[in-house]
Amino acid sequence: MVAFDTVIRNGTVATASDTFKADVAIKGGRIVAIGEAITDADEIVDASGLLVLPGGIDSHVHISQPSGPGIVMADDFESATRAAAFGGNTFVMPYCLQEKGQPLRAALKDYHALADKACYVDHSFHLIIADPTDAVLGQELPALVADGYSSLKIFMTYEGLALNDYEILGVLQVAREQGALVQIHAENYDAIRFLTDRLEREGKIAPYYHGKSRPIPVEREATHRAISLAELIDVPIVIVHVSNREAMEEIRRAQVRGLKIHGETCPQYLVLTEEDMQGLNMEGAKYVCSPPPRDKASQEACWEGLQQGVFSLFSSDHCPFRYDDEAGKLTPKGRTSFRWVPNGIPGVETRLPILFSEGVSKGRITLNQFVAFTATNHAKTYGLKGKGSIAIGYDADIALWDPAKTAKISQTGLHHGSDYTPYEGIEITGWPVATMLRGRFVVRNGRLVGTKGDGRYVTRSKPGAVA
Amino acid sequence: MVAFDTVIRNGTVATASDTFKADVAIKGGRIVAIGEAITDADEIVDASGLLVLPGGIDSHVHISQPSGPGIVMADDFESATRAAAFGGNTFVMPYCLQEKGQPLRAALKDYHALADKACYVDHSFHLIIADPTDAVLGQELPALVADGYSSLKIFMTYEGLALNDYEILGVLQVAREQGALVQIHAENYDAIRFLTDRLEREGKIAPYYHGKSRPIPVEREATHRAISLAELIDVPIVIVHVSNREAMEEIRRAQVRGLKIHGETCPQYLVLTEEDMQGLNMEGAKYVCSPPPRDKASQEACWEGLQQGVFSLFSSDHCPFRYDDEAGKLTPKGRTSFRWVPNGIPGVETRLPILFSEGVSKGRITLNQFVAFTATNHAKTYGLKGKGSIAIGYDADIALWDPAKTAKISQTGLHHGSDYTPYEGIEITGWPVATMLRGRFVVRNGRLVGTKGDGRYVTRSKPGAVA
Amino acid sequence: MVAFDTVIRNGTVATASDTFKADVAIKGGRIVAIGEAITDADEIVDASGLLVLPGGIDSHVHISQPSGPGIVMADDFESATRAAAFGGNTFVMPYCLQEKGQPLRAALKDYHALADKACYVDHSFHLIIADPTDAVLGQELPALVADGYSSLKIFMTYEGLALNDYEILGVLQVAREQGALVQIHAENYDAIRFLTDRLEREGKIAPYYHGKSRPIPVEREATHRAISLAELIDVPIVIVHVSNREAMEEIRRAQVRGLKIHGETCPQYLVLTEEDMQGLNMEGAKYVCSPPPRDKASQEACWEGLQQGVFSLFSSDHCPFRYDDEAGKLTPKGRTSFRWVPNGIPGVETRLPILFSEGVSKGRITLNQFVAFTATNHAKTYGLKGKGSIAIGYDADIALWDPAKTAKISQTGLHHGSDYTPYEGIEITGWPVATMLRGRFVVRNGRLVGTKGDGRYVTRSKPGAVA
Amino acid sequence: MVAFDTVIRNGTVATASDTFKADVAIKGGRIVAIGEAITDADEIVDASGLLVLPGGIDSHVHISQPSGPGIVMADDFESATRAAAFGGNTFVMPYCLQEKGQPLRAALKDYHALADKACYVDHSFHLIIADPTDAVLGQELPALVADGYSSLKIFMTYEGLALNDYEILGVLQVAREQGALVQIHAENYDAIRFLTDRLEREGKIAPYYHGKSRPIPVEREATHRAISLAELIDVPIVIVHVSNREAMEEIRRAQVRGLKIHGETCPQYLVLTEEDMQGLNMEGAKYVCSPPPRDKASQEACWEGLQQGVFSLFSSDHCPFRYDDEAGKLTPKGRTSFRWVPNGIPGVETRLPILFSEGVSKGRITLNQFVAFTATNHAKTYGLKGKGSIAIGYDADIALWDPAKTAKISQTGLHHGSDYTPYEGIEITGWPVATMLRGRFVVRNGRLVGTKGDGRYVTRSKPGAVA
Repeated sequence: MVAFDTVIRNGTVATASDTFKADVAIKGGRIVAIGEAITDADEIVDASGLLVLPGGIDSHVHISQPSGPGIVMADDFESATRAAAFGGNTFVMPYCLQEKGQPLRAALKDYHALADKACYVDHSFHLIIADPTDAVLGQELPALVADGYSSLKIFMTYEGLALNDYEILGVLQVAREQGALVQIHAENYDAIRFLTDRLEREGKIAPYYHGKSRPIPVEREATHRAISLAELIDVPIVIVHVSNREAMEEIRRAQVRGLKIHGETCPQYLVLTEEDMQGLNMEGAKYVCSPPPRDKASQEACWEGLQQGVFSLFSSDHCPFRYDDEAGKLTPKGRTSFRWVPNGIPGVETRLPILFSEGVSKGRITLNQFVAFTATNHAKTYGLKGKGSIAIGYDADIALWDPAKTAKISQTGLHHGSDYTPYEGIEITGWPVATMLRGRFVVRNGRLVGTKGDGRYVTRSKPGAVA
Repeated sequence: MVAFDTVIRNGTVATASDTFKADVAIKGGRIVAIGEAITDADEIVDASGLLVLPGGIDSHVHISQPSGPGIVMADDFESATRAAAFGGNTFVMPYCLQEKGQPLRAALKDYHALADKACYVDHSFHLIIADPTDAVLGQELPALVADGYSSLKIFMTYEGLALNDYEILGVLQVAREQGALVQIHAENYDAIRFLTDRLEREGKIAPYYHGKSRPIPVEREATHRAISLAELIDVPIVIVHVSNREAMEEIRRAQVRGLKIHGETCPQYLVLTEEDMQGLNMEGAKYVCSPPPRDKASQEACWEGLQQGVFSLFSSDHCPFRYDDEAGKLTPKGRTSFRWVPNGIPGVETRLPILFSEGVSKGRITLNQFVAFTATNHAKTYGLKGKGSIAIGYDADIALWDPAKTAKISQTGLHHGSDYTPYEGIEITGWPVATMLRGRFVVRNGRLVGTKGDGRYVTRSKPGAVA
Repeated sequence: MVAFDTVIRNGTVATASDTFKADVAIKGGRIVAIGEAITDADEIVDASGLLVLPGGIDSHVHISQPSGPGIVMADDFESATRAAAFGGNTFVMPYCLQEKGQPLRAALKDYHALADKACYVDHSFHLIIADPTDAVLGQELPALVADGYSSLKIFMTYEGLALNDYEILGVLQVAREQGALVQIHAENYDAIRFLTDRLEREGKIAPYYHGKSRPIPVEREATHRAISLAELIDVPIVIVHVSNREAMEEIRRAQVRGLKIHGETCPQYLVLTEEDMQGLNMEGAKYVCSPPPRDKASQEACWEGLQQGVFSLFSSDHCPFRYDDEAGKLTPKGRTSFRWVPNGIPGVETRLPILFSEGVSKGRITLNQFVAFTATNHAKTYGLKGKGSIAIGYDADIALWDPAKTAKISQTGLHHGSDYTPYEGIEITGWPVATMLRGRFVVRNGRLVGTKGDGRYVTRSKPGAVA
Repeated sequence: MVAFDTVIRNGTVATASDTFKADVAIKGGRIVAIGEAITDADEIVDASGLLVLPGGIDSHVHISQPSGPGIVMADDFESATRAAAFGGNTFVMPYCLQEKGQPLRAALKDYHALADKACYVDHSFHLIIADPTDAVLGQELPALVADGYSSLKIFMTYEGLALNDYEILGVLQVAREQGALVQIHAENYDAIRFLTDRLEREGKIAPYYHGKSRPIPVEREATHRAISLAELIDVPIVIVHVSNREAMEEIRRAQVRGLKIHGETCPQYLVLTEEDMQGLNMEGAKYVCSPPPRDKASQEACWEGLQQGVFSLFSSDHCPFRYDDEAGKLTPKGRTSFRWVPNGIPGVETRLPILFSEGVSKGRITLNQFVAFTATNHAKTYGLKGKGSIAIGYDADIALWDPAKTAKISQTGLHHGSDYTPYEGIEITGWPVATMLRGRFVVRNGRLVGTKGDGRYVTRSKPGAVA
């Protein structure tokens, strides 16, 4: 009887701390041995010249979320997780959005129904708390956290989602009591409304003005406020999708004071700028997301946030819409004002290549930092046991990377549901050539070999960030 | 014919920059000469051994404001301005509070009616904008600013007063367009409500818990937010009554970035602490004000704020209630929770002696800084032409100080409408022995010699802070 | 008998805090009255449309100092003080340079001899301690401080001048014990030597490389070190001629920590840049001074240092050499390397117009700040009683300014001993049209009317900075 | 034939990023497999309940260094490395001290002779550059770096060792050109001399005054200066043995600016204070080291430095002397002044238990951070390939820890050459129960089982810190 199901041979393994040549042996979907010259397996995978990395965990993706009347997200769970797998990911954490008046359990039931048997990679849900009633905070949420729904997201902006500070404090209080981790979208809603109204009065309605409606102080202010509210409750939080130096520095200041504030940034803040929204006609809509891309100096600040450890998480904030589609970016209302352009861009498939190429290949971060920012830290932060590293007993969620492979990002080559990518044309050095979920290939040699439904829902432990 | 009406002889004159021995000659209520050996006057006042300082300007006092059902402020314009005069002041800037739904003009009419013929010192009004309707912002306010009502106050907390960020931005926008100066009371209302609710649920209802319901981050957060909103509109503001290091540092950070953010602190933050609210039964109510007094380290921070120029204004935030009175601190509802204890303490009469004694006599600030913080900067900041210094052509608003006179602050010796002083027992070195308004004594030798109604309403110019 | 010797009528008086229209009456060389409509005087000077400001005090000038073999400073006391008077100054503070092995008394005797009967404006000396022997520190210095030589300067760079840290601490210790104020020239000598050697090895010997031999960290480092040494002894110091943001921020950090560190900047750091040293052939030598001019961002930082109160002093660091002269900038050795180019530029005559025009006329600082930075603060910092303001009893040291007068700085119009000005061609709005020393005109209507020797030596009191 | 020489079974492996249960298989002195249920080995070591950690690397130890006339270090290579092994270490990096005038090769020859065949654990040398002549910098050093002596140490203090800034720049320049890493001992020599002289004059000669002779600004200043010099050359450095918040913040400021400044702290700064030097008679001498232990707040700052990543290295600065010995702390001269008390304390054996207990057991840092601070980061920083982690192909340098074992530090239980430990009486939770060097036990069950001479000299690669 052979010892192992599969052995990945001759690759270079990297964890968040170490890099070494080793074979990786898999049995029952788990990594059971790492060593030299392991050969006794049903299948031998040759990884000569390749990196053997933990599959990417994208802890910030939006799939099949309602996004306003007549608007449809470009990805369902099938297409999103397929794209994720092609992008070297083995885990995604989409949001379960509570509608006003809706019990959380009901929302979860809906999202589970959408995801069940549809996924190519594993997943878990963050709960978006849009209606923090007494019942939600006092009963549902504690029960759900106990059931492993241990992370929540709240918004400081967006009609229908924005919580006021009283509500935010209520959510944070429950999070503290139950050991849940809260993500906060930090932008000042009133300021955005005010500036949007003013821009519209001035006739500035093109997509480009989206950025002008939420300048950096709008994000910095909300970041400081979110931190202050967390400080009042004494509870860790994650500030998601940080786009610029000022917000980054607020997080750093808090960390220096000893507060447990975690920071996340995303590809759009490393490689896009506000100028990308300067397209003719509605072309700029392709880049409309919130916070908006800023400028070159802000990109540099986000790199520093990663290099200096202010940010521990790098996610996609995948929120895909089709461009040439009235249910997408070209909604009729969107043409009347940037205010109505659906907010969000696709990115689950391109997140890892962008960071690898711009970060590792260009010498801005180490390979070990790459692993930490894209996999290990997500698993630790959100309580995913046995995922996020190449280690004994861990799920064999593995991406094989060719660090020398060059490619140009192009919509043609992508697998998401959008009809465009905001990263079109970016030259990449380093590409994931195969993705393995719990020991079985999902993507190999550029082809989908996994089966829809292979991806499982995973119940999470207490997030490391609140431990 | 004599040259001058009055000459103050042999005193030591101090301005915000210089100190020198000189005689000060007055004619027609104005200072018309400063020099050596001026003797040709109807009245010669001997100021040997005394300081000749500009009369104090207290730009932050509350008089006769409605303060909730059944609650009555302890001072009307007569008693408040009498107390002010005894405390070395020649000018006060009370608030004209707009009630919800009330036109500003109507509110002003009421307050003018209360003040007319009632005052012992000069005065001007800040407008409290509690209801920033389109009509108020679009029509009334521009007209009033043009009429010399060139400063406004807005609140980020208090039921019925708190504006949301959208409203604040609206007010700041008008201020920018019209050249008005906005004062902001910076505390996070939602956070106070949340913490108050939580404290009450825990049975923590004594006055002492007033401080716990609005800890330092509550003030720091709102300070940062107010600054951010002002930054978005690009307009100067005054952050009033700063109580601690963290809020002070937010102001400093803004100033260092080049923003025109002005800071004010008050006596309660230099000499009281949270522990003063630890009285038996309701005694702690005597010290209930907002922001609350903090601790010794915060006092030190407020001194540093003055010494290092972060704060340019030192005001009283006089907001007087009687203690032993159901219309004052002992309102029946107040006994059920600190939430209902009237907020505010008297201080218009003691502001100057406290700063002189603790600041000048103890060597923390110079005499010239004292003059700047208590008179000159107020006149400059708020656009009071010809007031706030000992200079030619200026109104002869003068306080004669005996820098060596020692006294103990005591309710017995005060003239305000309250039945107590929170500063009872503080030893003072340096006391104003006479106050002169436009050349005529209001207080002299410890006796009131002025006449009710001598104090005039003064229309202001464009505030220096927005020039 | 008339009351006054002279009255300056109808001008606008400005002090460091106030601005007002008034007549200024002078008797016996002192200001004895300020008032309205003063007419009873021997001489009536009409100052309609003019500003009546305290005469400039330039607390940082070098006159007749030995500057190396074969090199001669371009100004002696006569020419320097004449130029000073034309530039609106009534007081200069040159240095008395101790040579190695020389007793301080001997050095003072030499400088007094040079200055006696030679000056057009008043003066006092700072002592440069180049040889802090036990005798100097233990006996001479205490005696001299008691005699009113209450300020010292020490250098952290320059061959023959640089003290090591042990010696600096020794000087600071004496300063603390005797109540003297120490100025520190803060640049790291070893670093300059190292970089200079390296540049020379690379053949980079043109004047332009002067700047490269002492980049910003060289100054920042020494600034931080000087502050640290002062902190160890607990004694105030003045960091002179600060040229950039990083050094400025070190001073601010110290001030925020409560240390009494005073900062000075100079015209060359507001209007020149490193690029000025990029002249053809030796033209760049005209701008060689230390620290060197930096860049536009550094200029901005120096303005912020003034605006935000980090700097309280604005001096010229007048250190004049002729350009087209082998005893000046074109010394033969200087052609072999920037290392040997005499260090220093003229500026005593242009300091005030540059700050007035770039600062007051362009709205960067107020008129009152101008007075403070150029006169009042110097008098206070260095213990000049009765000078530096328009106040009763003060010396009638007055400059009459035409704030509307425009001019272009040109060597042709200047009166210093140099054959060039580094500020050639700068357009000025606001010019001193007359200078009066103790009640008598030195310069009037563009002509010298004072007499050589009118300027007196002034013994100083304990510096305000160490009080 | 069995597959492996040794298998460590059932332990919990921790790396700098991950923690997992696994067996560790060793062959030929290297780790060749990590996996589940590995049993095929000559020797099975049961590690149930134990942690399997990389052996500690102590990159800062002094062994057999000359320390002044009549003074002898308490450890030679045999005793030091034996103590190291008992303390869970498998690698030490002592210093090779160049004497004035001595070629580096000659010094190395001496130290190699002392270490050869004497060591129980592996080692490598840092070169102390005490005499940076042209020959040393221009010829010897480049050759030695090429030979793998890729790290240097320089001192800013100590008679005979202190380099001036010119010399430091010269060393840094060579380091940059050759790819070497420079450690800097950052204290201001002149300031220490000055303060020491002053203390002695005041009769303050007891060991306690050692701390007073080098207060925090002395260290902060030198830290800032060292950083500035490195910035001028643009080369990474390590600031060793940081003792307090101010120096830590200088390092943080540099890191935030993007400079590659690495920080190290030591046990004495986490658990000792200045008060420990307050012993009767000479007892305080037991704690005399430089920088000196500070206070509780400084300890907290050093913890923050570790937690927040400002410090990446935790070393012992083992520098052992006997206490009750005239060749040690009780040198006759030492009784005349703290100035002569030998500087340094033993710590190589207690470093790891102290950090484990105070850090991991008390929840201040994670187990993974412990591994990073004590092993992995040292290997990366200083270029030790194949050491510092539990990874395939790495040397089987392993410490087995019992995380639950409690003990009290006591001289009785230690193996170093000193006759005391400054950590006497500290309660420890978590102790290394066995140490394995390249697959063979050195210490097991509390007994020495290794053989003198097993420890090898290791040539290093280019330090990761300069890569």
